[in-house]
Amino acid sequence: HLPRPYVAHHPLQFCSTQQEFVDISTPQRNWKGIAISLLVIVAVCSLITMSVVVLTPADHPASVKSPLTVDDLYSSEFTVHDPEVTWISDSEVVYRNRDNHVVKFDFTRNETQVLLSNTTFVAFKVAKYSLSADLQYALFAYDVKQVGIVISLFIHFVEVWELNPPEVSNAVLQHAAWGKQGQQLIYIFENNIYYQSDVRSNSLRITSSGMAGVIFNGLADWLYEEEILRSHLAHWWSPDGEKLAFLTINDTLVPNMALAQFTGGTYPRGLQYPYPMAGQTNPAVKLSVVNLFGVTHSVELHPPYQLSLRDFYITMVKWISNTHLAVRWLTRAQNASVLTVCDAAVGVCLAVRWHEDSSDSWISRQNQEPLFDKDTTRFFLAVPLRQGGQGDFHHITMFTKKDEIEHITSGAWEVTQIVSYDENKQVMYVSYVFISPFHCVSTLGAFPRQCLTCGLREACTFFEANISPDAEHAILHCKGKSLTIILMNNHPLWSMLSTKRMLQACALSRIELPLKLILPLDFSESFLYGLLLIVGSSPGDQAVTEEFRLNWDWVLVGSEQVIVARLDGRGSAFQGQRFSFLSRYLVKLPYIDPTRVGIFGEDYGGYLALMLIKSTEGMIRCAAAQAPVVDWTMYASAFSERYFGMPSTEENRYQMSKVLPDMKGLQGGTLFLAHGTADANVHFQHSAELIKHLIRVGANYTMQIYPDEGHFLSRRSQIQLRHSLIGYFRGCLLDASSLLDRDVEDE
Amino acid sequence: HLPRPYVAHHPLQFCSTQQEFVDISTPQRNWKGIAISLLVIVAVCSLITMSVVVLTPADHPASVKSPLTVDDLYSSEFTVHDPEVTWISDSEVVYRNRDNHVVKFDFTRNETQVLLSNTTFVAFKVAKYSLSADLQYALFAYDVKQVGIVISLFIHFVEVWELNPPEVSNAVLQHAAWGKQGQQLIYIFENNIYYQSDVRSNSLRITSSGMAGVIFNGLADWLYEEEILRSHLAHWWSPDGEKLAFLTINDTLVPNMALAQFTGGTYPRGLQYPYPMAGQTNPAVKLSVVNLFGVTHSVELHPPYQLSLRDFYITMVKWISNTHLAVRWLTRAQNASVLTVCDAAVGVCLAVRWHEDSSDSWISRQNQEPLFDKDTTRFFLAVPLRQGGQGDFHHITMFTKKDEIEHITSGAWEVTQIVSYDENKQVMYVSYVFISPFHCVSTLGAFPRQCLTCGLREACTFFEANISPDAEHAILHCKGKSLTIILMNNHPLWSMLSTKRMLQACALSRIELPLKLILPLDFSESFLYGLLLIVGSSPGDQAVTEEFRLNWDWVLVGSEQVIVARLDGRGSAFQGQRFSFLSRYLVKLPYIDPTRVGIFGEDYGGYLALMLIKSTEGMIRCAAAQAPVVDWTMYASAFSERYFGMPSTEENRYQMSKVLPDMKGLQGGTLFLAHGTADANVHFQHSAELIKHLIRVGANYTMQIYPDEGHFLSRRSQIQLRHSLIGYFRGCLLDASSLLDRDVEDE
Repeated sequence: HLPRPYVAHHPLQFCSTQQEFVDISTPQRNWKGIAISLLVIVAVCSLITMSVVVLTPADHPASVKSPLTVDDLYSSEFTVHDPEVTWISDSEVVYRNRDNHVVKFDFTRNETQVLLSNTTFVAFKVAKYSLSADLQYALFAYDVKQVGIVISLFIHFVEVWELNPPEVSNAVLQHAAWGKQGQQLIYIFENNIYYQSDVRSNSLRITSSGMAGVIFNGLADWLYEEEILRSHLAHWWSPDGEKLAFLTINDTLVPNMALAQFTGGTYPRGLQYPYPMAGQTNPAVKLSVVNLFGVTHSVELHPPYQLSLRDFYITMVKWISNTHLAVRWLTRAQNASVLTVCDAAVGVCLAVRWHEDSSDSWISRQNQEPLFDKDTTRFFLAVPLRQGGQGDFHHITMFTKKDEIEHITSGAWEVTQIVSYDENKQVMYVSYVFISPFHCVSTLGAFPRQCLTCGLREACTFFEANISPDAEHAILHCKGKSLTIILMNNHPLWSMLSTKRMLQACALSRIELPLKLILPLDFSESFLYGLLLIVGSSPGDQAVTEEFRLNWDWVLVGSEQVIVARLDGRGSAFQGQRFSFLSRYLVKLPYIDPTRVGIFGEDYGGYLALMLIKSTEGMIRCAAAQAPVVDWTMYASAFSERYFGMPSTEENRYQMSKVLPDMKGLQGGTLFLAHGTADANVHFQHSAELIKHLIRVGANYTMQIYPDEGHFLSRRSQIQLRHSLIGYFRGCLLDASSLLDRDVEDE
Repeated sequence: HLPRPYVAHHPLQFCSTQQEFVDISTPQRNWKGIAISLLVIVAVCSLITMSVVVLTPADHPASVKSPLTVDDLYSSEFTVHDPEVTWISDSEVVYRNRDNHVVKFDFTRNETQVLLSNTTFVAFKVAKYSLSADLQYALFAYDVKQVGIVISLFIHFVEVWELNPPEVSNAVLQHAAWGKQGQQLIYIFENNIYYQSDVRSNSLRITSSGMAGVIFNGLADWLYEEEILRSHLAHWWSPDGEKLAFLTINDTLVPNMALAQFTGGTYPRGLQYPYPMAGQTNPAVKLSVVNLFGVTHSVELHPPYQLSLRDFYITMVKWISNTHLAVRWLTRAQNASVLTVCDAAVGVCLAVRWHEDSSDSWISRQNQEPLFDKDTTRFFLAVPLRQGGQGDFHHITMFTKKDEIEHITSGAWEVTQIVSYDENKQVMYVSYVFISPFHCVSTLGAFPRQCLTCGLREACTFFEANISPDAEHAILHCKGKSLTIILMNNHPLWSMLSTKRMLQACALSRIELPLKLILPLDFSESFLYGLLLIVGSSPGDQAVTEEFRLNWDWVLVGSEQVIVARLDGRGSAFQGQRFSFLSRYLVKLPYIDPTRVGIFGEDYGGYLALMLIKSTEGMIRCAAAQAPVVDWTMYASAFSERYFGMPSTEENRYQMSKVLPDMKGLQGGTLFLAHGTADANVHFQHSAELIKHLIRVGANYTMQIYPDEGHFLSRRSQIQLRHSLIGYFRGCLLDASSLLDRDVEDE
């Protein structure tokens, strides 16, 4: 039998262990719960005991289950339904149900109202929507073009408008979104912001400096989107919707990078866009606030005096009241940042915290938003705190304007996020990770720490929380799975999964570098397995959590002769020592065949994979790198300089970090490369330089290139690549004798 | 023992069978002969009897011989020494000897004089040279840059000049060459021609319209170089050196193609150049003659009235006296051409022959130079002549200005070239190919046909001839090999070859489409072999001759389980029917394993290979295409339109000829692609479109790309590709059981 969907309807109380759950599976048929789940069968194990608990769903006998395939991963049956749930009041949420209706649910009154019928989506051939603050209108994106979106405005029942700026003809809409109140609306054409106070009013042009590809208002250029803000949006509404803060990013002096184009015409033309590489001129950035009520006027927020005449980034903007913003400014060298509070009326920013440091753990959280008290006299941040010999862990620290500092939490566990802060009750809800052999992963905690979801561990191992405005309720998104199975709104996925032979995912956290093993179903320590190391794709990335993600490596492990180890590249200081140490450790495990070790990595992970080949002799038999970074002088300034400094002064470090391995360290001798030729992030030039080098030294390689595709491959190309990768690693990591058996079967 | 070098020193006489040879190996140590050889062990065989004669050099026992490797092919020991021999008078030749001295040899007086010492080449770090007409100066190319050559002028003993035009600073020299008399010299900078009457005189600028990449004087643009003239030179000296004819090619209206660039800088920039695709605007072309003696002035030679207001090409320019030129003009549709005689003084061209036809055999010889009598009243051409049911063969035909036509030769054999014409003796020397089961290949003949080199067949199977100005002597270049071994000037190559297990090359000419088989050393009809089909790279190409060429397929055949069949694509009318017919025929041979058939082709051959996969179901197991043409609308106008017509009217033919196979016809399922990303001939866009298609249909492919390399790969990339191809076809064409043995050996 399948367990019943539920929603956590739990008045969160400080130090309370009392928990109630409202089972909402009966009242409405459409309401299949808010918390969503993928599911995973988890064995908690350590490197020492290797006690493995194998769990398979009970409803299908193991014998009739089929192995997972690449095509499964991309089939519609395996798609996760995401209800995209949002709080609209203390007791109401809006979400999309399984039948594709958008509904409003009031859980105190237990009432449901359909806001948008699924027929609307069919009629407009659209998938995405956005509701106005008053819930009277919806915004649809249709005719989505490569470089922008044309958006239509849709009245609840009858009328349809198209957004078109009065000044620009044939322009491609880049962005449109509702404001904070009523039917407030902004949209962006040709890098200029337009505002409408309601759907029927005339549009006001807020900026005029915008220039396609050169000067950006309210949107991020490539560097800010990928490396600084990690969002393509660069504007922020004040809580009352009366003001809009936005960045103006000027790329006039930034050198252009060219992307080749091969297909799509008889004489295809390439694309150029500003991309500052290490040491090159960065975009200039300016933060302004515009008053939208009454006569619109803009005020520029000036950087604090500490940054005068220095090159800087703006990494975080957050309204902390209707008149003030918190803004973080970061020096270009990224060894110092200033957190300021800015007065939107006069444009003055005053530093509340100056920080100088260049450790990895500090740098990785430059987007972190401080939580301010209502009177903005004090604020909270998760900052690194040394815990004896165990290293740095992020803990909540309280700062006052009088420079008082108080550490709220401590210990060998790490605050990943401050989810919510209830100032009245003096309670803060945080998610955290334990660094201990037994996980109690990513849950809601209150300090002095009390685990609120640990009681739910039977139900789910990995939650994301979305707390109500009044901090009285939480929506829990289950993204992992534990000893029992929770199914919220994903029946079809669950029934598909139950027909598949699933594997064991096992987190090994005794060692400092987090690591996750995926083991074959009939794993036994007395057998010998091939090992595939998969490296995370960013130095700040937390690749190893209890979050359940099916990927192609599960298909590979399904062949039952290979163990996959997922590692993240954190703390490896770009030389991969820690990562290399861990790899060597794994290879020595008694059930790993040291002659059958492969490695795969993407972008930064591809760099680490190549580093490992270079630094080990004969340890790796086969290696695949997708869009690897080969030379950090050719990568984005904000990223490269963060770790290496300016090329003018640190030329040697850049040289040292170049990975042009001679492949003699590779037992099998063949490197597998994959890259989209129009990759705007890691340019194809990296692979090109690598190939030229490989040809020069006479090394073998095979490759899959994806013409005119970017960093994120198309669905079809992803499928093609997954198949190729699995074929490549099967040929390399499976036991030769069983390989022969397989060949005979194939013929 | 090694046979002695020799030179054919034979007064050629009509109907004479008397032949004498002067052995010139003794007189001078430096003079190791003019005729050069590669060598081959040939088995003459037919498809019917398959009588195979295996011959191995006697000086090494077969047991100690090693198989040929890819690295052998590119090693210095396997390099052919080319003496670059030229006639400078009726009795004198200049050539480069084995010791790298450039020497003049008078064979009537048996005298040798060193003109350029090998130390000169070392001192200037140059390999190429060119001697002035008076033999007093040499031209060296040094500091060769990608887009041109900087050339230095070198006095025999002392002085050195650099060529620099007075008007242009920092220009890259594109071309420099001596004239017909004394120290006449022209050179080209920025598409303008400069002239010097001798090395010490001032330079005269002959043209001023030149514009880099747009208007070309005296040099060909891309289209003329690759598809029309088949030479990058577009100027011609009159016999007395007083006049220079040159083309002005104007690409102003031709669309530009962009070549991507990935490496070679932080922000690499692509390259653009005019490239008219099918149906696009072609370059405009103009032919002028400039008088170099006295006051320089130019006369434009106007196209004949038949071509007025029509788009045309100039395909051939030849001085037939000091005042007149023969010029061939071809309509853009390439179904009609006019051969004219032009008066260089007044610029008038009069048609002497108008021809309309669009058969393959006619089109392929648009560069053929007519041989005129001294009084220019009659001329000779090799033109297609129907020989009953055996098809068209090129035969020598005499034309007079009175429109009289006389066929000089006929029969089921083909004149490949009119080598020389002795008007006094009324003798013409031609090279020809027999279409008969037994070859008497490419030799010198006189009509009524007498074979002059057939007596030398013991010595060499394939000659090229270079006849003295007075047509009394010939230099024979041996480029094939027969039952005995000739070694001219290539001792090191020969000794290397004698240590290798050589294979059998076998021409099968019973069937219309020429075909050459390369068989393993121990070939037996009772074994089963894999078959690799290799398709020629141009529809007009004569890939199958007795000329000996070692290539990577010899290495593959050395594995002794594969037979290679080299086919040329002639007469296949772009649909590959004939080629497909022949392939099916070969696959049915009793000693061919029909489950182990592969195919390889380059550019046009790649196109045919893909066509064959598309048209056959399961016949081909594996296929490799190097720089294949996939869509003829994206290929050069002059080539595509020749076979398909204008896209505007023949859209359907272009559509039909697109090769986007679904690869279901491919047994093994994997296509091997290789392409340089900066290929200026077959653009990378062809492979890109193919890959996108393959991803779309879910077909597998592997590929080797060569970043920023052109149509001709660098030496290192060639080696890499050869290794990859051999690995790919070994994996596919070798018997599975023996493959396992090999695997075990490898481990």
